[in-house]
Amino acid sequence: MIYLDNAASTQIHDDVLDAMLPYLKEQYGNPSSIHRYGRLAHKAIEKARKQIASLINANSSEIFLTSGGTESNNMALWGIASKKPSSKIITSSIEHDAILEPCKKLVKSGFDVLYLPVDNRGVVNLDTLKNSLSDDVCLVSIMFANNEMGTIEPIAKIAQLCNEQKIPFHTDAVQAVGKTPIDVKQLGIDLLSISSHKINGPKGVGALYIRDGIDIDPLILGGGQEHGLRSGTENVANIVGFGKACEIAKLHLVENISHMKKLRDILIAKIVNEIPYVTLNGDIENRLPNNAHFTFLGVTGEDLIIKLDEYGIAASTGSACSVHTQKASHVLQAMGFSHEQITGSLRLSLGVFNNEQQIDETVSILKKVTTELRSVSPFKEKYSF
Amino acid sequence: MIYLDNAASTQIHDDVLDAMLPYLKEQYGNPSSIHRYGRLAHKAIEKARKQIASLINANSSEIFLTSGGTESNNMALWGIASKKPSSKIITSSIEHDAILEPCKKLVKSGFDVLYLPVDNRGVVNLDTLKNSLSDDVCLVSIMFANNEMGTIEPIAKIAQLCNEQKIPFHTDAVQAVGKTPIDVKQLGIDLLSISSHKINGPKGVGALYIRDGIDIDPLILGGGQEHGLRSGTENVANIVGFGKACEIAKLHLVENISHMKKLRDILIAKIVNEIPYVTLNGDIENRLPNNAHFTFLGVTGEDLIIKLDEYGIAASTGSACSVHTQKASHVLQAMGFSHEQITGSLRLSLGVFNNEQQIDETVSILKKVTTELRSVSPFKEKYSF
Repeated sequence: MIYLDNAASTQIHDDVLDAMLPYLKEQYGNPSSIHRYGRLAHKAIEKARKQIASLINANSSEIFLTSGGTESNNMALWGIASKKPSSKIITSSIEHDAILEPCKKLVKSGFDVLYLPVDNRGVVNLDTLKNSLSDDVCLVSIMFANNEMGTIEPIAKIAQLCNEQKIPFHTDAVQAVGKTPIDVKQLGIDLLSISSHKINGPKGVGALYIRDGIDIDPLILGGGQEHGLRSGTENVANIVGFGKACEIAKLHLVENISHMKKLRDILIAKIVNEIPYVTLNGDIENRLPNNAHFTFLGVTGEDLIIKLDEYGIAASTGSACSVHTQKASHVLQAMGFSHEQITGSLRLSLGVFNNEQQIDETVSILKKVTTELRSVSPFKEKYSF
Repeated sequence: MIYLDNAASTQIHDDVLDAMLPYLKEQYGNPSSIHRYGRLAHKAIEKARKQIASLINANSSEIFLTSGGTESNNMALWGIASKKPSSKIITSSIEHDAILEPCKKLVKSGFDVLYLPVDNRGVVNLDTLKNSLSDDVCLVSIMFANNEMGTIEPIAKIAQLCNEQKIPFHTDAVQAVGKTPIDVKQLGIDLLSISSHKINGPKGVGALYIRDGIDIDPLILGGGQEHGLRSGTENVANIVGFGKACEIAKLHLVENISHMKKLRDILIAKIVNEIPYVTLNGDIENRLPNNAHFTFLGVTGEDLIIKLDEYGIAASTGSACSVHTQKASHVLQAMGFSHEQITGSLRLSLGVFNNEQQIDETVSILKKVTTELRSVSPFKEKYSF
């Protein structure tokens, strides 16, 4: 199999699993217990917290562990909004559903939400943001990089605008962490969501970075874990794995980015040059090193994925999560794409374990598959396939 | 080490870890992805859902996966309350903080909460419940069995009272599942919280059973996983482990209960008979088979735990989660215990892996430790230790 769906989930690194195993075997204490088993589990969590913090240059006291990126996003939005009822939230029209759906719920609770428009590369409009910042805005939440077409947003500029007006700024960095250097202090980020399973860590664990001084209400209450901000017995083994994944991601950040970027550029060049009627979507410069997102005219992304799967290639149309709603990509719609362009979209997302041979093989299979599908396409005559 | 803190967390069963490993290694797909990796992960989750459902005689469509018991409780309370603003919730004064804290938050949002009193064995007062049920009650939430002193509540009667008035009934069964037979259909339970790591499964995963026909709002929104009731990429490996743990728990339910009950009764008899000034707390009949909870007069539970830890025994005073708040047990307070009785409390909670030799050793060490501590106790003269 050639796995090119790393934006959906990634393979756990061997060293991550090795770090987890003791906590799935003999070290099964509850971190809140005061005996040796408890203390060892507690210590393991605090080590992981440092590793996670280090990857984004946060203090470990600013890292709050959650069950994943979605919970982190919900916690950030609800936790900040709860402090200022009936105020306004600014986000973008291309956020993940883990931002858009909580926003819809907040609208029902009396909040006002502004969805910033994006250009045809998926970059949010900074002028609209600038003109919309006012005292009644409780939070700005803009994703670090888009999960579908990989555009990296101008986070430093957005943070600066928010910082100037003392408005908390949250970023969903689930796709960006481990794929681009992130320094929350330097960038001026107040809250940031991370997910473990996107960076070769286990699923079911993530974190919300909350800058010291930012006050939020907890979403999940109980025994008071995570300084009262996230109750529930900690997912020790997965947290340990998440920490290790962050440590590895930091250690190899430069070479991983370089490796993925090289493969991505070969992939993009070959596909665009060797297969007709294909366009690359998103921004070519400000783009995640592991994202290649295309429109294949005259075929549907679903058909492409199914055919690629038959040939042993794992790919996706866009967000894995959107499979539950079966709706057309709101991201590509916001970028002004036509229905046909959206229908023909394919995302190939690279990971640290991919290699050049897999890229070559993928392109050659894609050629074959595209030809096969186009030979029976209703658009056959339009494009003279 | 002799681990007698199984109410806080349990050792993962070898077969559970074996079931998890493929999903921590080669099967890393996102269950929402439509390629082979995704489909295999999805299939694994649905198998686990059936195993979980089977343990409590639910339909698998009634099982919603969460990050653990605490989230399940928050989801049940918030999800039902959200449907009927400013209504009333009835719970008990001895619930876990994962019920009490969300209740406090709901009070701030305009809900009224009634905390049912309990008797000196920890049994909730059914007359007060009966007299309090009215049209403005949106939910009754009473724990199946108490986490500190193991009293099993009259769940069938409580459910019947609620069912008669068509009021949704939720029970936090985190401590009860796997320790007593639970048939949600027969008992008339509408919502039930389960945690994996209390039944020899991994941490970081749990479930909320929601009876078909009960309508709740989601707490965590996003990609629409769990039929829109709990978004976020599923914690596949842990869910698979949870399912396996449920399967094993069901298969060995009768023998496990019998094994733990036997050890518990030996432990209780020896401690009460061989160590002076010790009383068993809770209900002797309606009691979890794995719970032994005592008051050791003239010593503090904390000192006992620390000393026991030095001798290689893991125990607790009561709830592991309460370590964050450092407060005196609200459970024992509600049962009318004096400050001294509360201070001297010790919980020894058994698991399926404990054996009789460990019990004998524990009692002999407890004798020694109690004597040591009492020789320097400020209550030395009061009790002529």
